[in-house]
Amino acid sequence: MWAPLAHEVELVVEGLRFPMRREQGAWWTAEVALEPGARYGFSVNSGPIRPDPRSPSQPDGVEGLSQFWVPPPRLTSSWHGLEIGAGSIYELHVGTFSNEGTFDGIVSHLDHLKRLGVAAIELMPVASYPGRWGWGYDGVDLFAPQAAYGGPDGLRRLIAACHDAGIGVILDVVYNHLGPSGNYLEYFGPYFTDAYRTPWGKALNFDREWSEGARELVIDNAQMWFFDYDVDGLRLDALHAVYDFSAWHVIEELSERRAAWEEELGKRLWIFAEDDRNDWRVVAPRSAGGFGLDAVWSDDFHHALHAALTGETTHYYSDYQGTVALASALKRGYVFEGQYSAFRRRRHGRPGAPPSPASLVCCIQNHDQVGNRPGGERLSHLVGPELAKVGAALLLSSPFIPLLFQGEEWAASSRFYYFCDHEAELGKAISEARKHEALNWGAATYKDPQDPATFEASRLRWDEADTSPHRQVALWYETLAQLRPVLLELASQEEASVSVEGSLLTLRRGRLFLVANFGDRPTKTKFPADVLASSREPEGYPGGEVVIQEASVLVGAE
Amino acid sequence: MWAPLAHEVELVVEGLRFPMRREQGAWWTAEVALEPGARYGFSVNSGPIRPDPRSPSQPDGVEGLSQFWVPPPRLTSSWHGLEIGAGSIYELHVGTFSNEGTFDGIVSHLDHLKRLGVAAIELMPVASYPGRWGWGYDGVDLFAPQAAYGGPDGLRRLIAACHDAGIGVILDVVYNHLGPSGNYLEYFGPYFTDAYRTPWGKALNFDREWSEGARELVIDNAQMWFFDYDVDGLRLDALHAVYDFSAWHVIEELSERRAAWEEELGKRLWIFAEDDRNDWRVVAPRSAGGFGLDAVWSDDFHHALHAALTGETTHYYSDYQGTVALASALKRGYVFEGQYSAFRRRRHGRPGAPPSPASLVCCIQNHDQVGNRPGGERLSHLVGPELAKVGAALLLSSPFIPLLFQGEEWAASSRFYYFCDHEAELGKAISEARKHEALNWGAATYKDPQDPATFEASRLRWDEADTSPHRQVALWYETLAQLRPVLLELASQEEASVSVEGSLLTLRRGRLFLVANFGDRPTKTKFPADVLASSREPEGYPGGEVVIQEASVLVGAE
Repeated sequence: MWAPLAHEVELVVEGLRFPMRREQGAWWTAEVALEPGARYGFSVNSGPIRPDPRSPSQPDGVEGLSQFWVPPPRLTSSWHGLEIGAGSIYELHVGTFSNEGTFDGIVSHLDHLKRLGVAAIELMPVASYPGRWGWGYDGVDLFAPQAAYGGPDGLRRLIAACHDAGIGVILDVVYNHLGPSGNYLEYFGPYFTDAYRTPWGKALNFDREWSEGARELVIDNAQMWFFDYDVDGLRLDALHAVYDFSAWHVIEELSERRAAWEEELGKRLWIFAEDDRNDWRVVAPRSAGGFGLDAVWSDDFHHALHAALTGETTHYYSDYQGTVALASALKRGYVFEGQYSAFRRRRHGRPGAPPSPASLVCCIQNHDQVGNRPGGERLSHLVGPELAKVGAALLLSSPFIPLLFQGEEWAASSRFYYFCDHEAELGKAISEARKHEALNWGAATYKDPQDPATFEASRLRWDEADTSPHRQVALWYETLAQLRPVLLELASQEEASVSVEGSLLTLRRGRLFLVANFGDRPTKTKFPADVLASSREPEGYPGGEVVIQEASVLVGAE
Repeated sequence: MWAPLAHEVELVVEGLRFPMRREQGAWWTAEVALEPGARYGFSVNSGPIRPDPRSPSQPDGVEGLSQFWVPPPRLTSSWHGLEIGAGSIYELHVGTFSNEGTFDGIVSHLDHLKRLGVAAIELMPVASYPGRWGWGYDGVDLFAPQAAYGGPDGLRRLIAACHDAGIGVILDVVYNHLGPSGNYLEYFGPYFTDAYRTPWGKALNFDREWSEGARELVIDNAQMWFFDYDVDGLRLDALHAVYDFSAWHVIEELSERRAAWEEELGKRLWIFAEDDRNDWRVVAPRSAGGFGLDAVWSDDFHHALHAALTGETTHYYSDYQGTVALASALKRGYVFEGQYSAFRRRRHGRPGAPPSPASLVCCIQNHDQVGNRPGGERLSHLVGPELAKVGAALLLSSPFIPLLFQGEEWAASSRFYYFCDHEAELGKAISEARKHEALNWGAATYKDPQDPATFEASRLRWDEADTSPHRQVALWYETLAQLRPVLLELASQEEASVSVEGSLLTLRRGRLFLVANFGDRPTKTKFPADVLASSREPEGYPGGEVVIQEASVLVGAE
């Protein structure tokens, strides 16, 4: 137990108190034989009994005692690690993806994901967070998979099943702050610092005195997911808010440690990052001064495509109007590489060449972009399934790593809202804040995140997946997924050339040739290529000119 | 005038008010013909008249009006820019270096500095700060040289005289905070942010909305010193507290802009940084992910030598005990490259190879290390002039850029204290804080920084420089300075090997061979080299063995 400033620490197991011995200054130890499943906690300076900051299991929630859990031996498996290749990442929220809302509930849908070309699922945070449901970014027990999802054993079962199906597993991990409720880390030691402020809570102390506590917490947490759970990758939430101004950023240290772990585990371990700075140093090699992560999310790609498809001009979409933004997003993955952003009221992004396309994770929908809208609308709710299919073609023909958001592949009718289940006072404050945001957004409707119906309304309705028009959308996604290896091959490494005339977008990348009609009427154009896929049948093909149906896309090979 | 949130701005000249027009959102302009010397200020939203945030001159201090000043045309000079080569940097405080305490007061001492091998003088901050005297780190009018020092014209005269004497000029500039008194920047716009905290005041806003204000302030300030004053280099104060978490650090931007300025001015422009992180990325090339600055200060070198010479073990010196630290400092310039620092209670420094020796500025004394001691003691006050001469030999035979602190070269009898001249309330708070620090340090004496006598006691006494033992110390510094080109040549690029036996330190670097006796009794040793310089005559040289006098050093060539 790391408690550098404590003068007394006790381990409390099933009501028995065991005094701990101080070792090497900051660490306390006690040797006690525990049965797997035993409940335990710690008391510092004769204070209340609190759960283990590294609790492996919190069966009674974040306010309950910790439960001793020993990871079973690693399963032998034919799985040799994640390769993304022409596959995609599929982001899902455990609580709403399946009817069951559990890790086990995901397993029956793996065939569906396989047909979609999913290389890996990415679970929104699973670390124990307060309440019966929530997005998970308020996690406080970083080592304990949420009990309601199935706890540690459930997560192990899911990962084994995914690997048997040839699908990797990525976990979304939050290393910038801890949730506001059920967070007892400060009871044990100076895990936080006042030197920086995050929008969501106290910043973890990665660079001040006693920073070893938070640094080792994060690095050991990552190591645990890789070693005890056989996880294939981590997606670091909001790296731009992991404040570490030291000479050795904790995530750079993580990146370095990973190399040794890969050696030890004999498989590739991935680290992705969400980082809203458009800073390619995150994925630049460590020898070039970068963090050496594998890929970083690009919000720009989403925003530019969303603005073009929906015509929305408000909020941050105001920065992404026009064909220059759209073309840059499709060609480079980024729109802002140091230019002034009127919305942000500052320059944005790092000048220089953007990272290689395979180092950018791009999407046309994700939990944030859907769920932070007051209406929780998916792209298909805003533009209809046909234009959403156009978006899918632009995404899945791109050289970037595509990320799909649960249900997008069949234009699911269910919304995805922001929801949580906090205790009354905090819950009320969050409800008020979200209401205020909704009003700011100019939203007509507002869903209370604390209302259980908001959570339930966000659940996928699997029974609709085989009905029209959902089935047709799903087939389109499957078609694109099957075609994607060919498209990547055709396009080789070339940067796209993009032109927009009226409602017609033409994109050329190597021998890949794509024309999309964003408008609401059929439009005639030249299509000097072989059609490989069309979201709606064109007229006059083959021939000198074809008529591209409204809200449709033609993908071809020159 | 940058005032993005103002709704009205007036330029006020000699009592006349001129409304300004908003241009491009954030900037306000008015066209008014001013006579050089005219006093002016600005009123925002009908508020009080405040000095220009970019005032070129504050003849009545930081609370007074600004004075219009036009830089005279650049002088033609035989000066082609600073090359440090085997020279050193000489840090001085304008107010206490000379009897006059002015820029002009420095000029008569340039011959002395020339004999010392000084390539450039480095002026402690000259930007206008509150009060009649002070160290200068509380500057608030970053563009206006302190009136008491001689204002803009005085600084121009000094720089011209230095260049005529073949000496460069480096300015210490503070871009991490502004002083607590006389700072009106917030009256004009959001120059500061609450996102980060510096130990000395609000952090400048380099990465949040409206960050263009602070970013351009800093970059334009640097440009002004180079263009309007012909300054050769800037020393960035506490770069570790220039908080910019964006994809494009303001100092990286400055480093890039400098390349164009060098082109335009046809001379080399230097940027040095104080940075307590031991982070070699500060000086790594921009292509390798670094900032591309020229050199960075190494506190480690100072601390290790100070600990070895004085035997002090308290405070941060506790981290620098023993021969490993001393050897590392002499060989690499750094002691901490990622190891745990017990004093800092965290790991410290960046792992990897340290920067090239010519990218590290090292010293055995500087304004901070002398002046932040409650007693203001120079090294010579602590260990006597002979052991101080040993330190000088270790510094001036090193491959690093040596920095000398005013008066060190003759073991000046005057102390250098922390002093300031703030208004009563703030002054009292600072006095109390310093008293508290002194008690913490266990100091027997305490000098009130607000007491004018503390300032006066810090002034160099030039009349002592020609008396014993000061003259002998100065001759030793001159000897080492003359020898330094030879020593660098002998040592070529090799890393030193260092061994310590009892009180004898032996250092070999290429053909350079040095033995220092830190102890208080003569000691016999082998000296298989030709003596080039000795601080005290050894016995038995030449011969198989020589007796090295106590507190002395022999420098030789193998």
